[in-house]
Amino acid sequence: MRVMGVDPGLTRCGLSVIEGGVGRQVIALDVDVVRTPAEVALQQRLLTISDAVEHWLDTHHPDVLAIERVFSQQNVSTVMGTAQAGGVIALAAAKRGIDVHFHTPSEVKAAVTGNGGADKAQVTAMVTRILGLQAKPTPADAADALALAICHCWRAPMIARMAAAEAKAAEQRKKFKAKVKAAT
Amino acid sequence: MRVMGVDPGLTRCGLSVIEGGVGRQVIALDVDVVRTPAEVALQQRLLTISDAVEHWLDTHHPDVLAIERVFSQQNVSTVMGTAQAGGVIALAAAKRGIDVHFHTPSEVKAAVTGNGGADKAQVTAMVTRILGLQAKPTPADAADALALAICHCWRAPMIARMAAAEAKAAEQRKKFKAKVKAAT
Repeated sequence: MRVMGVDPGLTRCGLSVIEGGVGRQVIALDVDVVRTPAEVALQQRLLTISDAVEHWLDTHHPDVLAIERVFSQQNVSTVMGTAQAGGVIALAAAKRGIDVHFHTPSEVKAAVTGNGGADKAQVTAMVTRILGLQAKPTPADAADALALAICHCWRAPMIARMAAAEAKAAEQRKKFKAKVKAAT
Repeated sequence: MRVMGVDPGLTRCGLSVIEGGVGRQVIALDVDVVRTPAEVALQQRLLTISDAVEHWLDTHHPDVLAIERVFSQQNVSTVMGTAQAGGVIALAAAKRGIDVHFHTPSEVKAAVTGNGGADKAQVTAMVTRILGLQAKPTPADAADALALAICHCWRAPMIARMAAAEAKAAEQRKKFKAKVKAAT
């Protein structure tokens, strides 16, 4: 499974692609950070990010896009821009029929370090070790994008089992309703 | 000047197009609300909104897009979706080279009612009167989209004067710096 991880942001947007193998084996294929200057109009910044993400999707053909889920409780001054960037990124995937999954920062930290409250240095150190990289990925947005992709790779089987269980439950509800209707 | 007004939102997104004439004359050309169900995946909801806005831009050819500026202080449960929707709408305009302007809710209310703290009923009543409509536009998102377009039409000359003054000041700063450099 090929996963593209995105740490959305207007000033710095982290992008990564990893390939998941047998078990917990993961290989980094690409990582970069897209930057847009604060003095440029919002719509132009969103266009730059959208163009970069579309280029990555068309170059790397990921099976799924993993995006960091933003909460409005975070830094108020940047959260709106982060949400706007996340919106155009999810849209680019939807236009290509690529599945999108959102993971919270603590889900990502827990997946790669075992601790949902890990700091940036711990996340970077574990990402470097897991992917067997020669050097630490910088800036933090690049490491976060890789961590998101690893997190999705490792959580994907559990997400698939949950979706299957939910589909089964919905099917049973439907059957039960049909039974009740036939009985009345 | 033809202005498209957008009240962004995932559940209900208000769209309007008005034509500004001489002085404060404004004519409503179209108004509608795009709805997307909460049970659909976020990226699919954003795609539906993006497709609708792209269709409007290609049908009505507005000169400018006026979007409500969202603040993270507003309703926490809906603000992230509103920002994500606003992002894909601004992107659609940027892709077509259409100018985008953001107006705060109080700027819009002040423009159409003279009171930045006006309630929804007042805004709807004034929008109906200003545009000479036979019936009140409903739901509130439709009235808000029309109010945004009216607000931009009426503020546009002031925005243009401010942009011109800023460009002049930047030019003077540049000249001054060149003068200082030449003198040293």
